[in-house]
Amino acid sequence: MINIGHIGLGRMGEFHARTLKSLPNANLYAICDLDEKKLNEISDQLEVEHRYTDFDEMIKDENIDAITIASPSHLHTQFITKALNAGKHVFSEKPLGVTVEECKKAEKAVEANPDKIFMLGFMRRFDKSYRYAKEAIDQGKIGKVYMVRSYSQDPTSAIEGAIKFGPHSGGEFLDMCVHDIDLIRWYTSAEPKQVWAIGGCYAYDEFKDWNDGDNVSALLKLDNDAMAFLFAGRTAPHGYNVETEIMGTEGILRIGSVPQANMVEILDNKGVRKEISQSFIERFGDSFKAELKEFVDCIEKNRKPEITVYDGTRVSEIAYKCKESFETGKLINI
Amino acid sequence: MINIGHIGLGRMGEFHARTLKSLPNANLYAICDLDEKKLNEISDQLEVEHRYTDFDEMIKDENIDAITIASPSHLHTQFITKALNAGKHVFSEKPLGVTVEECKKAEKAVEANPDKIFMLGFMRRFDKSYRYAKEAIDQGKIGKVYMVRSYSQDPTSAIEGAIKFGPHSGGEFLDMCVHDIDLIRWYTSAEPKQVWAIGGCYAYDEFKDWNDGDNVSALLKLDNDAMAFLFAGRTAPHGYNVETEIMGTEGILRIGSVPQANMVEILDNKGVRKEISQSFIERFGDSFKAELKEFVDCIEKNRKPEITVYDGTRVSEIAYKCKESFETGKLINI
Amino acid sequence: MINIGHIGLGRMGEFHARTLKSLPNANLYAICDLDEKKLNEISDQLEVEHRYTDFDEMIKDENIDAITIASPSHLHTQFITKALNAGKHVFSEKPLGVTVEECKKAEKAVEANPDKIFMLGFMRRFDKSYRYAKEAIDQGKIGKVYMVRSYSQDPTSAIEGAIKFGPHSGGEFLDMCVHDIDLIRWYTSAEPKQVWAIGGCYAYDEFKDWNDGDNVSALLKLDNDAMAFLFAGRTAPHGYNVETEIMGTEGILRIGSVPQANMVEILDNKGVRKEISQSFIERFGDSFKAELKEFVDCIEKNRKPEITVYDGTRVSEIAYKCKESFETGKLINI
Amino acid sequence: MINIGHIGLGRMGEFHARTLKSLPNANLYAICDLDEKKLNEISDQLEVEHRYTDFDEMIKDENIDAITIASPSHLHTQFITKALNAGKHVFSEKPLGVTVEECKKAEKAVEANPDKIFMLGFMRRFDKSYRYAKEAIDQGKIGKVYMVRSYSQDPTSAIEGAIKFGPHSGGEFLDMCVHDIDLIRWYTSAEPKQVWAIGGCYAYDEFKDWNDGDNVSALLKLDNDAMAFLFAGRTAPHGYNVETEIMGTEGILRIGSVPQANMVEILDNKGVRKEISQSFIERFGDSFKAELKEFVDCIEKNRKPEITVYDGTRVSEIAYKCKESFETGKLINI
Repeated sequence: MINIGHIGLGRMGEFHARTLKSLPNANLYAICDLDEKKLNEISDQLEVEHRYTDFDEMIKDENIDAITIASPSHLHTQFITKALNAGKHVFSEKPLGVTVEECKKAEKAVEANPDKIFMLGFMRRFDKSYRYAKEAIDQGKIGKVYMVRSYSQDPTSAIEGAIKFGPHSGGEFLDMCVHDIDLIRWYTSAEPKQVWAIGGCYAYDEFKDWNDGDNVSALLKLDNDAMAFLFAGRTAPHGYNVETEIMGTEGILRIGSVPQANMVEILDNKGVRKEISQSFIERFGDSFKAELKEFVDCIEKNRKPEITVYDGTRVSEIAYKCKESFETGKLINI
Repeated sequence: MINIGHIGLGRMGEFHARTLKSLPNANLYAICDLDEKKLNEISDQLEVEHRYTDFDEMIKDENIDAITIASPSHLHTQFITKALNAGKHVFSEKPLGVTVEECKKAEKAVEANPDKIFMLGFMRRFDKSYRYAKEAIDQGKIGKVYMVRSYSQDPTSAIEGAIKFGPHSGGEFLDMCVHDIDLIRWYTSAEPKQVWAIGGCYAYDEFKDWNDGDNVSALLKLDNDAMAFLFAGRTAPHGYNVETEIMGTEGILRIGSVPQANMVEILDNKGVRKEISQSFIERFGDSFKAELKEFVDCIEKNRKPEITVYDGTRVSEIAYKCKESFETGKLINI
Repeated sequence: MINIGHIGLGRMGEFHARTLKSLPNANLYAICDLDEKKLNEISDQLEVEHRYTDFDEMIKDENIDAITIASPSHLHTQFITKALNAGKHVFSEKPLGVTVEECKKAEKAVEANPDKIFMLGFMRRFDKSYRYAKEAIDQGKIGKVYMVRSYSQDPTSAIEGAIKFGPHSGGEFLDMCVHDIDLIRWYTSAEPKQVWAIGGCYAYDEFKDWNDGDNVSALLKLDNDAMAFLFAGRTAPHGYNVETEIMGTEGILRIGSVPQANMVEILDNKGVRKEISQSFIERFGDSFKAELKEFVDCIEKNRKPEITVYDGTRVSEIAYKCKESFETGKLINI
Repeated sequence: MINIGHIGLGRMGEFHARTLKSLPNANLYAICDLDEKKLNEISDQLEVEHRYTDFDEMIKDENIDAITIASPSHLHTQFITKALNAGKHVFSEKPLGVTVEECKKAEKAVEANPDKIFMLGFMRRFDKSYRYAKEAIDQGKIGKVYMVRSYSQDPTSAIEGAIKFGPHSGGEFLDMCVHDIDLIRWYTSAEPKQVWAIGGCYAYDEFKDWNDGDNVSALLKLDNDAMAFLFAGRTAPHGYNVETEIMGTEGILRIGSVPQANMVEILDNKGVRKEISQSFIERFGDSFKAELKEFVDCIEKNRKPEITVYDGTRVSEIAYKCKESFETGKLINI
C-alpha cells in the first residue's frame, strides 16, 4: 500500500483525489490545498485525516511515499523539485513547467533522485482509442506517418473559467497544445524543427491581456519532414472536443472526430444527433484513472513510467516556440 | 420524341410533370387535372399547350403516345385500363390499385395490350443506394438473405396532409408499405406466406376513422422461411425516414439509416448533428427522375421494364393481407 | 466488507470474479467450480483461499455473506433457492430460470427470506447509454413511447460456443432476448399481451436439434397497445451487436446502432470504418462491474435493488411465450 | 439553343461533353481534341458532326456561340483569350492559369469583351452541401468565421495519372488547392495575407522532379486575422476525399468529412463501414453538371456568373504564393 500526499483540489485535483481513494494499492494519506473549506469538505468525504495548507509541511511527513500534484501550472516545477528532494515519488499534472528554465530545474531534481519514480500526466496516452492508434502505427498498419492533425477545444460554456485562469495558464499552447505536441512526438517518433503559429481573439478580447488568443493554430515541420497541424480553442460550440488525425501512406486514423458522450443517437426535430462530452473529465475520466493507477503500480513494482521528465521539457520547449511564433508572427526554428 | 399526356398535379404529379419536361427524348404534350387554376398555372410554366380536366378527353388525342398517372390511388386502375385500351403506353404511380380486384382488372388490360409498355412507380429500385444493395446481394456478397427490416416514415410536419388524404390512401400498408413489400420481394426473391400486423393511433386518433393507425408494423414469414419486418408511421420527429436493413449469412447492409439531406455535419449547442430529408421528393428526387427516364427509354427502345403489373398485384395483395391482420388482430395466411 | 462466495468460472463467471476482487467493499472469500484445474488457477491468481467443487459445501461456510451465481442457466434457480435458504444474499446471472415453474420456486425462496438482498443480472440497465435513454424517457423528452425495437446478436466468430452450450441455454429467446424483454418492460412500463415469433436455421442446422433457430424474431403487442420487435441471432458478421431503438411521439432514441469498440475511425482501402466490439464483455464490461458494485452496495446499505425476482419471472414467462410461438407457429396470448 | 464548341476529351472533358449533350438549351455543335481516335469515338457516340484537331480552326466557325475548355491547365489562358477575341462566350476549367502573368492576360481578354460571358469552373460552389454551408454562413448561423480547414485528396489508386500529368499540372497548390482557396475566400469574404507551406514526397519521389510533394499543406493568415489550413495529397488510401471545416463563433460546419459514395452501411468482418467516392466525378458529378447548366443559362439570359476572372487570378496568385513558400521554405507575404 502506497501512502499518497496529494496537492490541489481544483476540478482536476479533486478528481485525482477520488481516483486515489479508489485504487486498491494506494492509500490517500494526506491532502493539501490553500482553500481550507474545500480541503476539509473533500477530506471529510474521502475520510482523509491528514490535511495541509502548506505543501512544505506535508512533504515533511515521513509516512508519505508519493506526492501527486494538481496545483496551478506555474507551481508544478517547484513542488516537483521539493517533493523529489524530500524523498518522495512524484506524479505531476501537465505541463511540466511554464518556462523551459523551470523544466530544466525539474530535470535536475529527477536526475538527482534516480531511485524515485517521476511521472507526468499526459493522460491521452492512457485513452483506449489513442492507445489503439499507437498500436496500429507501431504494427505498421498505416504505413509511414507523414501528417498529424490534432485539436484541443474547450467548450464555450467553460469560457468564464478559461478567462479567469488564463493569465496563469501559460496560454493556449502551454495549457492545451502540450497534449497534442506529446501525441505528435509519440506517434511520429520525430521532433518538430520549425513552426509558424497564428490566431487571435475572435470572440473574447480578454485573452489579449496575456498575449494569448481564444483560438490559435500552428503548422510544424518535423525533422523527418513530416507535417503537424495544431489547433486549440476556447469556443467550441458543441462541447469538449479533442480529436487527432494521423495520416500514413497506407491508412488514416481519426480519433474522436465526434466526441460523443455515449452510444445514443437522438432523432428529433433538430435532426439526427449525438450528445457530446462537455468536459475533459467526462471524455477522459478513464484515462485519468488509468494514469494514476500506472503511477502507483510503477512505484509498487519499481518500474519506470514510459513518459519521462525529458518528454515534459521537450514538449514545453516546443509549446514555447509555438507561443513565440504566435507572439512575434515569425517563422521559428526549434 | 415520345409525346406524353400526364394526369395529376399534386405534389408528386407536379414533380413528374417537371421531370417529363426536362427529358431529352420526351415531349410533355398534354396535362390533365381537375383543378383548372393549378392546371393552367403549371401548364403555362412548362409551356404545355394541351390542357384537360377530363381524362377521357385527353386519351382521345392521337398525338399522345404515353400516359403518366399520378392521380389519387383509388383511380389508378381505371385510368391505367382506359389508357392502355386507348392504345397508350402507361406509367402509373404506386400502388397499382387499392383492392386486389382492381389490380386484377389492370392485369387484364395489360395482357390485352401486349405491345404497350406498362410500368409501375416502385421508384426505390432506381435509387443509387438501393441498387447498390441489390447488386451486392446478387453477387453473393452478403451470403443468403434471411431477414429484411424496412421502415417508411413520414415526418410529423406532414401530418395534416396525411390526415386529409388518409381516407382515400388505402391506409398505411397500401399507401406506404407497398414500397417495402416490393423491396422484400426484390431482395429475397421469395414471397410472404404469413403475416401478423399490429399498430395503433398513438398521437392522432383521426386515423381510426378509416381503420388505420398512425404507426403500424408487421412481421412476415416468407416461403423460404426468411423473416421480414415492416414499420410504417406518420409521426417521424426528424424527417422523411426510409431505411432498409438486409441481413445475410455473410454480411448486413443498411440503407439510409440516417436519412441525411446532405454531407454537412453541424457542430453546435445541440450536439453533433445532420439535417434530414424532409420529404420523399427531397430524398428520392433522383429516383423519381430515373424511373420516368426508364419508362420513356423503354418506349423508345421497345424494351420491357423490370417491374411488371404482376409485381403490382402481388404487392397489393400482400399489403391487403397486412391490413386484414391489422384490422382483425389475427395471424393471416397469404 | 462483504464476504462473497462465487460460483461459476466460465467466461462471464471469471469476469465477475475479477470484478468482485477489485471492489473496495467486497471480499472474494470463496470460489466454487466443477473444473478443479480452472478453480485453482483462477483462485491462485486472485489469491482466494477457499475453494469448492460442491456448491452445497460452500454455502455451509458461515463467513460467507453473499453468493454470486454465474453457473449454467438451468442451475440458477436451485442455487438461488439453496443460497437464500442458507441465509445468504444472492446475485444471479440472467435468466432467472429456464422454466416458469423454476422461476416461481425462486420467487418463493425470495419471499421466504425478506431480509436478504436478491438481485438479477440485467446488466444493460447499468450501461451509460441505456441509462441515458431511460432518463430521457422518464423526463418525457421523447413523448409517449409506442415502439421498441431491440436486437441481440452474437458474432459468427463465437458460433462454436453457441452450438456447444445451445442445448442447455434455453434457446435464443431465453438466453438472449431476456435482456431485450427486460428493456421493453423498463422503457414502456407496459406488459406484452400477444406475441408471434418466427425464425429458422439459416446457416447452422445444429440449432434445430433443440428446437431453436440461429436467428429468430418476435413481434409483440403490449397491453397499452405499444409495439415491440425483438431480434436475436448467432451469426452477426461484424461483432457483438446489441442495439435498441425507442420511438416516441416526440423523438426517437437509438442506442448502440453501431457497436463501435472505440472512438477510432479507420480510413483505408476498405472504406471508412470502425472496429466493433467482439464480445459482451468488451461491450458491457463497465455495466457488469457496475451491477456487482450495486449488489454489494445494496447489501452494505441494506437497500433493495431496482430489479426484483418478479421481473425475472415475468421476463422468463414472456420469453417462454415467444419460444412457444416460435415452436408452434401460432399467435400466442401472454 | 446555344451552340457549343468544346475542347478537351480527357476524363473531365469527356464528362463535360456528355453534360453539354444532355442540357435542354445547349447544342454540342463541335468538339476539338488532338487525339483523333478519341475525337471520332466520342463525337460518334454523341452524334457531333463538327470535329477539330486545331482549336484555331474551331473558333473560326461562326455558328459557335460559346467555347468550353477542358484542356491541360497550361493551355487554358491562351484558349480563353483566343475564344473571347473570336467573339465567343467562354467557360474554362480551373485553374485560370498556371502563372499569374497568364491570368492577367486572361483578365485583359475578358475586359476587352465585356458583352461576353466568362465563367471559371470552381464547381464546388455548385455542390448541394457546399451551398448549404454558404447559406448558413451568410445567414449568420455559425457567427463570425475564424477558421477554415480544407482538404483535397486524390486516391492512391489514381497515382499513375497524377505522376504522368504532374509536370504540367502546376503542382499540388495550383492543381488541387485552388478549389480550397476559392472556398476560403467565398466563405470568409477575406483575403490571405501570409502563408507558410510545407510538405514532401512521402511515398512517391517522382513529384520532386517538378519541385512538388505528394502531400503538402499550408497555413494562411487572412487579412481579417482569420486562419486557414490547406491540405492536399495524392495518396488517400480510401478514395477521393474532399472535406472542409468552417469554424464560427456560434457553430462549426463540416462538409463531407466522410466522402461516402452512397447511403449504404456495410456490416461485415471488416467492421461497420461505408464505401467511398473514388473520383472527383463520382463525388462532384452533379456539381459539374450544375456549373455547365449555369454557364449556358447565363448566356441565354444574359446574366453574369458569380465567379469572375478576377477570382481566378486571385486564387492562382495565392496558390502561387503557397508554392513559393513550399519551394523556399520561407514565410511569404501575399
